[in-house]
Amino acid sequence: MLTMQDALARLTTYWTEQGCLVVQPMNTEVGAGTLNPATFLRVLGPEPWHVVYPEPSVRPDDSRYGENPNRLQTHTQLQVILKPDPGHPQELYLGSLAALGIDVAAHDVRFVEDNWASPALGAWGLGWEVWLDGLEITQFTYFQQAGGLNLDPVSVEITYGIERIIMALQEKTHFKEIEYAPGVSYGEVFGQSEYEMSRYYLDDADIDANRRLLELYAGEAQRMIDAGLPVPAHSFVLKCSQAFNVLDSRGAVSTADRAAEFARMRRLAGEVARLWVDRRTEQGLPLGTITPPDAARPAASVQTADGERTLVFEIGTEELPPSELRSARDQVKRLLTEGLAGTRLGHGEIRVFGTPRRLIAVVAAVAAREDDHVRTVKGPKRQAAYGPDGAPTKALEGFLRGQAMTIADVEIEEINGVPAIVVKKHEPGRAAPTVLAAVLAQVVTGLRAAKNMRWNDPKLSFSRPVRWLTALWGDDVVPVAVSTLAAGRRTRLLRTAVPPHADIDSAETFLETLGVNGIVADHEDRRELIVIGAQDLVYPDGKIDVKGEAALIDQITDLVEQPLPLLGTFDESYLSLPDAVLTTVMRKHQRYLPVRDENGALLPMFVTVANGPVDVELVRSGNEAVLRARYEDAAFFYRADLATPITEMKTHLNRLTFTDRLGSMADRAGRISALALSIAAGLEIGSPVLERAAELLKFDLGSQLVTEMTSLAGIMARDYALHAGEDRAVAQAVYEAELPRNTGDVLPATVPGALLSLADRLDLVAGLAATVGLPTGSSDPFAVRRAVLGLLAVHRSTPALAGFTLTEGLETAAAAQPVPVSAEVLAAARDFLAKRLEQVLTEEGQPIDRVRAVLLHADRPALADVLLGQLTSAVADPGFLAVAAAVQRARRIVPAGTVAGYDPAVLKEPAELALHEAVTAVPAFSDVTSFVAATQGLVGPVGTFFDEVFVMADDPQLRAARLGLLATVRDLGDGLLDWDHLRL
Amino acid sequence: MLTMQDALARLTTYWTEQGCLVVQPMNTEVGAGTLNPATFLRVLGPEPWHVVYPEPSVRPDDSRYGENPNRLQTHTQLQVILKPDPGHPQELYLGSLAALGIDVAAHDVRFVEDNWASPALGAWGLGWEVWLDGLEITQFTYFQQAGGLNLDPVSVEITYGIERIIMALQEKTHFKEIEYAPGVSYGEVFGQSEYEMSRYYLDDADIDANRRLLELYAGEAQRMIDAGLPVPAHSFVLKCSQAFNVLDSRGAVSTADRAAEFARMRRLAGEVARLWVDRRTEQGLPLGTITPPDAARPAASVQTADGERTLVFEIGTEELPPSELRSARDQVKRLLTEGLAGTRLGHGEIRVFGTPRRLIAVVAAVAAREDDHVRTVKGPKRQAAYGPDGAPTKALEGFLRGQAMTIADVEIEEINGVPAIVVKKHEPGRAAPTVLAAVLAQVVTGLRAAKNMRWNDPKLSFSRPVRWLTALWGDDVVPVAVSTLAAGRRTRLLRTAVPPHADIDSAETFLETLGVNGIVADHEDRRELIVIGAQDLVYPDGKIDVKGEAALIDQITDLVEQPLPLLGTFDESYLSLPDAVLTTVMRKHQRYLPVRDENGALLPMFVTVANGPVDVELVRSGNEAVLRARYEDAAFFYRADLATPITEMKTHLNRLTFTDRLGSMADRAGRISALALSIAAGLEIGSPVLERAAELLKFDLGSQLVTEMTSLAGIMARDYALHAGEDRAVAQAVYEAELPRNTGDVLPATVPGALLSLADRLDLVAGLAATVGLPTGSSDPFAVRRAVLGLLAVHRSTPALAGFTLTEGLETAAAAQPVPVSAEVLAAARDFLAKRLEQVLTEEGQPIDRVRAVLLHADRPALADVLLGQLTSAVADPGFLAVAAAVQRARRIVPAGTVAGYDPAVLKEPAELALHEAVTAVPAFSDVTSFVAATQGLVGPVGTFFDEVFVMADDPQLRAARLGLLATVRDLGDGLLDWDHLRL
Repeated sequence: MLTMQDALARLTTYWTEQGCLVVQPMNTEVGAGTLNPATFLRVLGPEPWHVVYPEPSVRPDDSRYGENPNRLQTHTQLQVILKPDPGHPQELYLGSLAALGIDVAAHDVRFVEDNWASPALGAWGLGWEVWLDGLEITQFTYFQQAGGLNLDPVSVEITYGIERIIMALQEKTHFKEIEYAPGVSYGEVFGQSEYEMSRYYLDDADIDANRRLLELYAGEAQRMIDAGLPVPAHSFVLKCSQAFNVLDSRGAVSTADRAAEFARMRRLAGEVARLWVDRRTEQGLPLGTITPPDAARPAASVQTADGERTLVFEIGTEELPPSELRSARDQVKRLLTEGLAGTRLGHGEIRVFGTPRRLIAVVAAVAAREDDHVRTVKGPKRQAAYGPDGAPTKALEGFLRGQAMTIADVEIEEINGVPAIVVKKHEPGRAAPTVLAAVLAQVVTGLRAAKNMRWNDPKLSFSRPVRWLTALWGDDVVPVAVSTLAAGRRTRLLRTAVPPHADIDSAETFLETLGVNGIVADHEDRRELIVIGAQDLVYPDGKIDVKGEAALIDQITDLVEQPLPLLGTFDESYLSLPDAVLTTVMRKHQRYLPVRDENGALLPMFVTVANGPVDVELVRSGNEAVLRARYEDAAFFYRADLATPITEMKTHLNRLTFTDRLGSMADRAGRISALALSIAAGLEIGSPVLERAAELLKFDLGSQLVTEMTSLAGIMARDYALHAGEDRAVAQAVYEAELPRNTGDVLPATVPGALLSLADRLDLVAGLAATVGLPTGSSDPFAVRRAVLGLLAVHRSTPALAGFTLTEGLETAAAAQPVPVSAEVLAAARDFLAKRLEQVLTEEGQPIDRVRAVLLHADRPALADVLLGQLTSAVADPGFLAVAAAVQRARRIVPAGTVAGYDPAVLKEPAELALHEAVTAVPAFSDVTSFVAATQGLVGPVGTFFDEVFVMADDPQLRAARLGLLATVRDLGDGLLDWDHLRL
Repeated sequence: MLTMQDALARLTTYWTEQGCLVVQPMNTEVGAGTLNPATFLRVLGPEPWHVVYPEPSVRPDDSRYGENPNRLQTHTQLQVILKPDPGHPQELYLGSLAALGIDVAAHDVRFVEDNWASPALGAWGLGWEVWLDGLEITQFTYFQQAGGLNLDPVSVEITYGIERIIMALQEKTHFKEIEYAPGVSYGEVFGQSEYEMSRYYLDDADIDANRRLLELYAGEAQRMIDAGLPVPAHSFVLKCSQAFNVLDSRGAVSTADRAAEFARMRRLAGEVARLWVDRRTEQGLPLGTITPPDAARPAASVQTADGERTLVFEIGTEELPPSELRSARDQVKRLLTEGLAGTRLGHGEIRVFGTPRRLIAVVAAVAAREDDHVRTVKGPKRQAAYGPDGAPTKALEGFLRGQAMTIADVEIEEINGVPAIVVKKHEPGRAAPTVLAAVLAQVVTGLRAAKNMRWNDPKLSFSRPVRWLTALWGDDVVPVAVSTLAAGRRTRLLRTAVPPHADIDSAETFLETLGVNGIVADHEDRRELIVIGAQDLVYPDGKIDVKGEAALIDQITDLVEQPLPLLGTFDESYLSLPDAVLTTVMRKHQRYLPVRDENGALLPMFVTVANGPVDVELVRSGNEAVLRARYEDAAFFYRADLATPITEMKTHLNRLTFTDRLGSMADRAGRISALALSIAAGLEIGSPVLERAAELLKFDLGSQLVTEMTSLAGIMARDYALHAGEDRAVAQAVYEAELPRNTGDVLPATVPGALLSLADRLDLVAGLAATVGLPTGSSDPFAVRRAVLGLLAVHRSTPALAGFTLTEGLETAAAAQPVPVSAEVLAAARDFLAKRLEQVLTEEGQPIDRVRAVLLHADRPALADVLLGQLTSAVADPGFLAVAAAVQRARRIVPAGTVAGYDPAVLKEPAELALHEAVTAVPAFSDVTSFVAATQGLVGPVGTFFDEVFVMADDPQLRAARLGLLATVRDLGDGLLDWDHLRL
């Protein structure tokens, strides 16, 4: 059996053979290998660096007394830094797995998007978690920034989680059972330390002492920075970090502390980084500097066909995130379409496909050459071209010389009405490969992602590295060259293929060649393979909810090139865990499809989709082990939570920050509860259920399970509340308080739930609007848009709230914030709500004019809803249309500022007197329906009035009275509808 | 080339193959691998443990900014723990060197005594430095105690100094040049850190912050102990240690702090150790317990000869310290002699030999059997043996039954004058092997050293492990068995021999067999080989001072089994270093013999003595490299010292502790100077030279070179003072202040030097007598005896001091101590001085009676000296003898308490009147010579008086006058000599 120490030795040896040097772990506690100066300092600056080292990584927060089978306060990382990116780091990494004896062709090894950032270090990078049969075994990151400095060159950081890898390889279910060395278990070596250090971190560390340590460390760090000594300064920054983590795990970090500490550490780390770069520069960069790879030379331009041929262009990447893949496909299509439009090359349909590792454009019937073309070049005006003697002037001669033409080529054309010399140049169309090379190059350089990174290419930037280009027009290579990449006819296959690449004969056979090698280029084809395969696997015992899981299936589809659905099972006993726990783990953590029986109950099975031809039994059992471990984890947390009084969980909210300026989660829960109770009081809909639910609100954020799986907030609250013997209605209310969690989610069904949900979202909007600001563009980190949509939906769906105005709610919420919320901010928030309501209602299919007509009731969405419904009926009513037309006509005629009032005695015409009477007789109304009824008597008189009365009489008194009468008509229904917007 | 990281990997792999597990270095700063819990905690208790790990070891005090070629603030240890001792750890260790590619047969690998102790950890062990061609590359220790707990089983601790090994193997002269990884130097990886951490430790660490850190760490350590958590507690003890080391390297540790901190750390470490043992015990010792090796079964007892044969008995050990070897030989001889004397086995001469690895007893002509023997067993008294009827009583019958005898065997013998029953048992002598087995076993168990250790044998204890026994009587194995060892005929040869053992045919061929295999058993033979070999090597260029280096040669002789003298050279440029520096390095550090020309000037060469047949060129060049590095070190320090003002060096004395209670070295130097000046003032022999020398006194203790080589104190003071432009006489005085450094050393030649030397030793005696006490038995850690001998020698050799009394000196010194010095202590100190003077004088050959006669002048040894000389002449003078006899006779006759005074008028006899006149006429005298002259007139009268006068007259008045007259004679010379002791 491969022991843990063997694994460390083998990996170390492997990377040494790849040119890495070996250093020792840091001799002060660190949370990750990244913090070791062999990473944090050495990734800075232009010097090369290749290193491998183990790093016992201390995470006080992960302390579990050694009881949790998968979580340790100290776990062992093996850290590798490759600087610069060698260009094929994924392949090197797979080699390291092989060195561990892992058959990467038999297993399902996957690179699953994971972006890493450490705000406290001013560091981030893009990359992946590496999955081995569903188990995360490695973090693989292209390190982009450290200490706030952009890294140039970028480093590849590979961090192996050794305990996890070994547990998988040794098939152990508890870390203590790992065979660490022959005959010696991990538990025997480290078990005592796990228990005791957990005790220290969770229970026994002296808070005051650690606070003082933190201050002393920070002081020394700053002093060393001032002395220009980055190495000891860095060591003290690490000590700060550990002291902070200890305080945090002891629950002793206040909101203010956390923000201040992160800011301080980020500043110190930044100064350390700058100093280090300075020192290395002063020393003349002893390890030398990295020469970026040379620019590629394009393939020779050869054209062997003269008819139309297919163009295929493949951009080979490292695994793109599914979320980027769709956008990338669209970009390729747009860039290519525009690029070709800028040429005179005839072509047919442009289709674009994508898999995680490639973007493929296929363009039908691309002509062999551009169309020929005549270009007119304008010369001097005719007047200036010939002298009085008719002889060409020097101006004309110069022009002709410049254009390499003769006097015989001269023509005269009228340009802007003035006759001028022109010459016409016949330009033959360029050959397709030449034209395409330029267009395709721009497609590559034009690609952008939501988050872009750099790699060893000195000029490119994209979501993940672009590693190869394949470009064929018919049988010929299109001589594209972009920075270090030159296109050829070679494509890459699955990494486990033998050989892992293929040479393509012609563009026409490209997709076929991929297909023969198992790669399904088209998203829809892959999706269908997955759906059908999964359904077949579970038939007849269970079903896949293909519609309900559509988003997940789409994501899975873009995680594989050659989908291979596999059925796995898990122990039935786990079905005793809440349904949401089971499915959250499957969907979010593992991208497994849940399987249900015909009643919708979960079955103890799942479908996972491997990539390519794997050893099915091996991958199945690997995934089953991962799920078992995750369920074991969840069950562990669940049991622990059930053993914790819910009031105690609630106290944990003091330790959770909402935002730096808006206090802890406990603060926020308190504000929400108060707001909900105040609204209820105003509406006289308070109840003991609401009061108890308000007390408990959000308590499950203090549970271990929700800490692990935040998406279960609310669901676990209901579960734990029921287990704790709370009233069923109370449990339901704390659950509903979190609804809706996203668009289309269920809404609160009870009044207490709705009140809490509404108050939650009002608090969120008021607080964030005043601090981070309302969302603009695509950036909405706190999901304020989603909250507002929820707010509107809850109001609309809860009749009891109909009388409540959101404006009032926002004002009350604003007054409770720990920061001032200005009137401008509140106005902006109201406006934001109204805009969202407009959007929702139009998306529901309501005509925009009617939507806008009711939008003055945006702060009572339920009312707006009612009015909009009535309006839909009313617009079919001629009476309403007539009154509405009169109102609108009156609005047009009556000058602004005219008061709705007049002296009836001045009126004399029968029509106006009739209108006066009808207007006076209009009874009170409260909505569109009653408005229609109330104004029925007006229909006739108002029509007659407009037909017979000349409003703008010469007599000023009379004119004023008539205008006053009309203003009264104008104001009919004021505050009910925004008549200006209504198109009838 | 073997890179440093390769070396670490190879050693790790080697030890893993021997069953060690691999752990990571400690994630808090430690000074040595021993502090890692994988050693400190795991050596405790009865569980087995085998581990190997690297440990970057931080020694703030060794910070040199990366400039010193051989010294680093962080060096890399590779630590191995073997628990239990596997029985052949040295051989396993040599295997590890082979794994590094070191040809241990070609190199000179030696185990050189080194005893390790860490008072702060309550830990100690015995073992060796391992030398590779003179270079210390490893510490090898049998760990005996940790945290104040005795270790059972004992662990073997092997600590490789990786940088040193690699520098040797790569032939680098500066650590920065080490090839750490292919193409990457050590300096490139660690150079910046060396510089910056040196800056922190030496210059920039905030003292106040580190003091507070120390207190916080100690507080957390104690809290964790109170919480019963040894693991975090240990971690905080380590942090304490590092904070303390930082303070120390910043020069911020006061005497009181140091003592208190060591005590605190020792206490904390002890509590951690006890807690750990408790925890492991509570857990049922998860790793199991170690079964000690079985007791050995002795060889079958076979006797094939019936005549006298030689007995040879070899006790095979691991390398004994030279200082223990002589004592061990003596013990074997004594134990064997006594043991054989307790038998009836005839034998001839007993000879005992010893090498570092064996003690050999050879006994000539050992008889085949003991002599036969009659043993008399006493029974009841005759009276009780027979009844009145003459029949045997029950008592007699019982006795006979018990002895298995009959009534016929009964004899009567008188015992203590009472007739009693006896029986005589004829006991045949036992066979030689049987007799010898018992005797030899007792030799082994009886061995004791000054410092004893335990190893894997459950019953034995000695200076170093006993690993084998060889015992032959003639051709036969003597069936000795002691604990786990059974003797056989196999002896072990040099470890590099092939095979490394030999079977001996007969005792008579034993020494020959050893000799044939190169091993020279006899110390004198080895010594001669060394002396002759060394002289041959240097002839004719230079000479070895065989007499001057006798102690060193003796030591070298006991470091090897097969001496192979080698000549090495060093660069002439190093001859510019002071002679004492060069020879101290050669003798003390390297055990090399210096080579001088005929004028006594050092030549740039040395002789080292390898053990066994090595590759001469390899070993020579290795030793040359070591010496070069050491001289480079010394030159580095020397240059640094020369660049430091001597007054600045003197300030460093504040950082050096003398003893906990007696203050710093600066305090001590101040006291000495004041005392010297005060003595000089009293004697009116003060001078500007003395005053300046007193100011500078001991300043060189603050130099780097003397810090490294304390034995150069004084020598470097003179050198540096001269370089600093001090007066030559001043420089000489600060040098002489340290003289004599040992018995037989040169003495101060100048008055200022003598004064300072005397004051130094008076201060030492007064202070230590009052604190640690005067030496008793063999324990004299502060070398007080040597100081007192020096004190006496200086006084005797300095005429200017003759008038000065040591009593007065001690009193003045006592008054200046920071602790009270009681009158009792001062009296004991005077007594101690007197006893040493008596010893010195008798050792110089003076008769004890005369020595004792002058010993009342012990506090003026110079005077005692003079008087003793005069006494030697006087005892040949009949006049002196007559007066002396009279004085002594008067002392006997005159009752105690009789006053020397009388009424001359009462006297009447002529003889007494004549004596009265003669006594009255005795002039003043000041020494023995003037006493003889002064008392010449007394010779006749005193004789006549005793012949003619009856002292005890009846008349009380007369009797009183006569006794008074005699008392006056008695008191003649009182205070000059102690007449009681004088035997004439």
